[in-house]
Amino acid sequence: MANPENHNKEYTNDKFQRSALQVREAQARLTAYAAPLSLEEVPLNQSYGRFLARSVHAPHPFPAFDRSSMDGFAVIAADTVSAGDNSVVWLKVVDVIPCGAVASREITTGTVARIMTGAQVPGGADTVVMLEATESRMEDGVTYVGIRKPQAAGLHITPRGLELGTGELVLPEGTIIGAGDIAALAALGAANVPVRRRPKVGIFATGTELLEVDEPLVPGKIRNSNSPMLEALVREAGGEPIMLGAIVDDLELARSKVQMALESYDLVITTGGVSVGDYDIMGDLIREQSGEMLFNKVTMRPGSVTTAAVRGGTILLALSGNPGACFVGFQLFARPVIGLMQGAAQPFLPEWTAVLGVDYKRVNSFTRYVRARLEIREGVLYAFPAAVDESSVTVTIKDSDCLIVIPPDSGQMTSGDKVTVLKLPGEIRG
Amino acid sequence: MANPENHNKEYTNDKFQRSALQVREAQARLTAYAAPLSLEEVPLNQSYGRFLARSVHAPHPFPAFDRSSMDGFAVIAADTVSAGDNSVVWLKVVDVIPCGAVASREITTGTVARIMTGAQVPGGADTVVMLEATESRMEDGVTYVGIRKPQAAGLHITPRGLELGTGELVLPEGTIIGAGDIAALAALGAANVPVRRRPKVGIFATGTELLEVDEPLVPGKIRNSNSPMLEALVREAGGEPIMLGAIVDDLELARSKVQMALESYDLVITTGGVSVGDYDIMGDLIREQSGEMLFNKVTMRPGSVTTAAVRGGTILLALSGNPGACFVGFQLFARPVIGLMQGAAQPFLPEWTAVLGVDYKRVNSFTRYVRARLEIREGVLYAFPAAVDESSVTVTIKDSDCLIVIPPDSGQMTSGDKVTVLKLPGEIRG
Repeated sequence: MANPENHNKEYTNDKFQRSALQVREAQARLTAYAAPLSLEEVPLNQSYGRFLARSVHAPHPFPAFDRSSMDGFAVIAADTVSAGDNSVVWLKVVDVIPCGAVASREITTGTVARIMTGAQVPGGADTVVMLEATESRMEDGVTYVGIRKPQAAGLHITPRGLELGTGELVLPEGTIIGAGDIAALAALGAANVPVRRRPKVGIFATGTELLEVDEPLVPGKIRNSNSPMLEALVREAGGEPIMLGAIVDDLELARSKVQMALESYDLVITTGGVSVGDYDIMGDLIREQSGEMLFNKVTMRPGSVTTAAVRGGTILLALSGNPGACFVGFQLFARPVIGLMQGAAQPFLPEWTAVLGVDYKRVNSFTRYVRARLEIREGVLYAFPAAVDESSVTVTIKDSDCLIVIPPDSGQMTSGDKVTVLKLPGEIRG
Repeated sequence: MANPENHNKEYTNDKFQRSALQVREAQARLTAYAAPLSLEEVPLNQSYGRFLARSVHAPHPFPAFDRSSMDGFAVIAADTVSAGDNSVVWLKVVDVIPCGAVASREITTGTVARIMTGAQVPGGADTVVMLEATESRMEDGVTYVGIRKPQAAGLHITPRGLELGTGELVLPEGTIIGAGDIAALAALGAANVPVRRRPKVGIFATGTELLEVDEPLVPGKIRNSNSPMLEALVREAGGEPIMLGAIVDDLELARSKVQMALESYDLVITTGGVSVGDYDIMGDLIREQSGEMLFNKVTMRPGSVTTAAVRGGTILLALSGNPGACFVGFQLFARPVIGLMQGAAQPFLPEWTAVLGVDYKRVNSFTRYVRARLEIREGVLYAFPAAVDESSVTVTIKDSDCLIVIPPDSGQMTSGDKVTVLKLPGEIRG
C-alpha cells in the first residue's frame, strides 16, 4: 500500500468546499485581471500576428491622386463627342506620363498625354482611352492619336480617395494584423507599428505519472503531452511560453516554484493537481495560500475542476490534467486572458450557429463543450461531434476545429438541430 | 515628353503574343515544378505550422493501459451483485495506486484497491467505483470500503487502445501541424518531427513609381505595399521570404539580379512589370531569356497578366503590380507552390459553396475572383463581395476572407444564389 496515511483523509467530501461558477462568470472574473501590457513599436515586417495598440486613420486620401487604371491616353472627353468610324478625331500627343512621374503640362482642348497604368492623370484630362482603342499617325515629328468613338468622362480612372478619405478609420485598435493589414499599413506609410508586448506565460505540469516525450513508455505512466500542447497554444494565442517543467508532489517546493513564476511572468498556467484526489497539489497550494481565489469549480464538462487565483495581480490558472479538459480550459480561459493582455478586440472564440450533423445522445447537468469537426456543405455549416469525447482524450484533440456548446439538461439532440459552436483557432479542415 | 523614342514601339499590339490559360491549367503547369524539398527533423516544440514529411502511425495502443477515469476503488464487479441499502458489501482495501504507479498485487474476490484518476487499473479488477459512492471503516488497521449498489463491469475505465490501436494512422504525411497534433505526437513519443525544409522565396518589386514605406508621399508615386504584403504572405504559407528590393528599369541589371536569385532560392516572385505598356521590364525579361515559359496570360480577373517561367528548374513567378491582383495571384499560384515544396497535402485554398449575400452585377468574359467577406448566420455561410473591387485596391485587401469565383458570362447574380468561394488563410472575421 503506497501511502496509507493519506487513506482516511480523502474519504471526506470535497475538501475545497467548491462553489461552481458559470463559464461566463468565471471568464469575467479572470478577464478583470487581464489588462493590456505595455505598448511597444515593431517594424512593419514583424507586426504579423500582433494586435494593433492604436487605431490607424488615413493620413491622406487613398489613392492619393487620380490614377490611370489602363495604358492609354489621358483625354478631355468633350474633345471626342464628334468621333465616329467615319469621323476619326485626331488629337495631338503632347506628353508621356510613365508610372511614378508627373505630367509636364496641363491637357488642353485638342491635346492628350500618353499615360501608363498607375500614373497620375494630368490636370485638364478627365478620361483615359485605352491604347487598344486608338490608332496613331506622325506628322512632322508630332504624334497624333485617332479616336473613333465618343468617350465618357471618368473612364479608366481610379479616383483620388476611392478607398479612403483623409482621417477615415483604417484599422481599429485591437485588430490582429494579417498580410492585408500589412499592405494597408505600408501604403499609408506606417514603417513601425504600435503593438502590445507579448505576455510571458509560465507553464508547469504536475503529476508523478508523467514521462518526458523522449522517454520510453513504462507501465502506469504516460508521456507529458499537456506541456508541449500548452506551449503551442500559448504561442498560437500570441503569448511567449516559458516552460518551467514539472511540479513534483512536494508542497513546499511547489509553493516556492509557483511563487517565483508569479513574480516573473504575466500569467502562470499549470495542468493537473486540481481534482479531489489525494495528490492534487495545485488544489492544496491554492487553498492554503493568501491571495484572491477567483474560482475552483466551473459548471462545464470537461474541466469542471478548473481553478484560478490571483497573487499580487498575477493570474494563476490551474487547468485540469486531463488533456481534453486541459485543451478546452485553455481555449475558454487562458486564450482570452492572453488576448486581452495584447489588447485584442475579440479575445474570445468566435461563436457561430451550426447544424448538428448527427444525433447527439449524451446529456449532462453541466454545460458540455464537445469537441467537433466543422464541414461546409452547399452553404450550410455542419458540426460533427468527435466519436471519442472523454475528458482524457489526447491524440484525438487534433481532430476538432470547434466546440459544440451543449446546454445542461438540453435532452438528446437530433441531426439537423441548430447548435452553438465555438470556433477553435485555425482553418476548418472539413 | 519624357521618353519619345519609346513612343511608337508601343502602338503595336500586345508584343507577348499571349495565349491565355485557364487558372487550373496554369496552376498545373506551375505545380509540376514544385517538388517537395529535402527532409529535416525539428524538435517537437518547433514543429508548429510545419508540414509532416512522413505519416505517423501509433507505435503502441493509446491509452497504453486500462486507465481509471475517476478517483475511487478498483473492484471486481461480481463482488457487488448482492449490494443494497440494507446489505452493504464490505471489501478489503489491499492496495493504493496513485497516478503513475503500478499495482503491487492482483485484485481477488473480496479485495479492492484505492485508485486515483489516471492510474492503471490493477489486474483482476474490472470496474472502478467512485469515491463519492462509497463509505469506509477501519478494523485492526485494515480499511474496508462499503458499497450499497451493484456495480456494472467496465465503469469509469478508459480502455487500453480507446483512441488508437497499434499501427493505426495518427497523422498522414502532409498534415500542417497544429497544437492538437503536437499533443498527439508528444503522447506517442515523437520528440523530433520530420518536416520538409522551408522554401526560400526571393521577392522583387519593379516600378519607378515606388516609394519605400518610410518615405514621404510625393505626387505621382505610391508606397511599395506589395513587398511587405508578399513578405507576410510567404511567411504565412510557411516559406522564408528574402527581400531583394526593387528592380529598376534597366534590363541588363534586372537580368543579372533575377538570374542570381533563381540560382540562390527555391522560388522567385516579382510584382509589376508584366503589362503591355512600355516599361514592363519583367515581360521583356521573360520573353528574351532562355528557359521554359509556363504562361503569360491567365483567363482571370484580376491578374490576367500573371506570368511564369522556369529557369534551371526554378520557378520565376511574375505577379501583377496592382496590389489587389498581386494578392489574388499569390493566393492562386504562389501559395500552392510554397505548400507543395513543403509537402502539403492540401496546398490549394479550400473551396466551399456559400450563399451570395447581395446582388452582384459585374459581368466578365474571364473568371473573376472577387474579394469578399464571409459571415455565418443561423448555420448558413454567406459571402459579401467587397464594395470596391478594382485590381488596384490596396488598403481594402484586408477586408476579405475569401474570393468568390464568378465564372465567365455567368450573367448578373442575385442575393441568395449559390456561389463557389475560395477560403483565404486566417480566421473568418464575420
